[in-house]
Amino acid sequence: MAAPIDFYFDFSSPYGYLAAQKIDALAARYGRTVDWRPVLLGVIFKETGAAPLTVVPLKGDYSKRDFARSARFHGITGFRMPSKFPIPAQAPSRIVLWLKARDAALATRVAKALYRAYFVDDVDISNPDAAAAVAANEGADGAAARAAIDDPAVKDALKREVEQAIARGVFGSPFVIVDGEPFWGLDRFDQVERWLATGGF
Amino acid sequence: MAAPIDFYFDFSSPYGYLAAQKIDALAARYGRTVDWRPVLLGVIFKETGAAPLTVVPLKGDYSKRDFARSARFHGITGFRMPSKFPIPAQAPSRIVLWLKARDAALATRVAKALYRAYFVDDVDISNPDAAAAVAANEGADGAAARAAIDDPAVKDALKREVEQAIARGVFGSPFVIVDGEPFWGLDRFDQVERWLATGGF
Repeated sequence: MAAPIDFYFDFSSPYGYLAAQKIDALAARYGRTVDWRPVLLGVIFKETGAAPLTVVPLKGDYSKRDFARSARFHGITGFRMPSKFPIPAQAPSRIVLWLKARDAALATRVAKALYRAYFVDDVDISNPDAAAAVAANEGADGAAARAAIDDPAVKDALKREVEQAIARGVFGSPFVIVDGEPFWGLDRFDQVERWLATGGF
Repeated sequence: MAAPIDFYFDFSSPYGYLAAQKIDALAARYGRTVDWRPVLLGVIFKETGAAPLTVVPLKGDYSKRDFARSARFHGITGFRMPSKFPIPAQAPSRIVLWLKARDAALATRVAKALYRAYFVDDVDISNPDAAAAVAANEGADGAAARAAIDDPAVKDALKREVEQAIARGVFGSPFVIVDGEPFWGLDRFDQVERWLATGGF
């Protein structure tokens, strides 16, 4: 069986959220699975000197308009900018990493639910209790999820995951790697699709 | 008749070059014309704090790969990264602005020829004599084109054009404005197309 597609995302990334609504179906059309890999853009941006899109002059106003328009373009309903934005994504990212080692399918469902909580229901998932509650609602052990956020081993695992992502060239969200080929952005999903269909072009 | 589509581009922008191969046909499918508007990203980036893509850590390596892959994806042959990159785009931009006031159709043909000279034939179009020679080859008055580059009135016109672009929110290349709606990047041409087809979504 072909290797999973690596789907890197930051829980605070609007384009990451939109891409998260598309990636599983895209992969499935080509018999592929998806490895959902939360990363922290704040750490990555220290490497590249980038700033959150929404605070950049000119680009900030445009990006807010483009988030909503891109959601409409892709038929993704319910999207809205959260009241608190951006947020540090340690809490939800650690829950997903902790859960992946135990039940990968549940970890993916929880990742989707966390994204939905933030970008549809305006839940502040940077809050550890709120993030654990979302996980519990999907069937994870809420108390264990809450404890995982403060677990030094889980913290360390997330740190290593982000370092490894940087080493692989990941600099934004969403960021997809298919058989070693890197694609940045939801707007490269057309190229991802052709790559999957043809094996490279 | 509907207003022209504003197509902002920097002569040193690879994505601008790729978009330039697509914009006229896209507009024509919806009975629209294109106003080709050269701008200077160097000036605009002072406003936004951005740097040329290729010098950004991680993003630089990715972008060089993505330029070539995007050219292949869009069926654009002949593209190659110029030996000298990026270049200041004053000379070709001033020629196009000068010519627009005299013969808009010729100005567009010259703009396309200048882009092709840089991204296909590896001509350094930041060189005033080289840029004027490209214009002459398309049928413009070569000596007048060369003189326009140093004409204070033309210099001033380009300065105003860039200032006006910034005032309209232009922060990158290519940047398209359709009936007041802004679109950044060749990867938004799918949204531009739906906007033209539906009048907005």
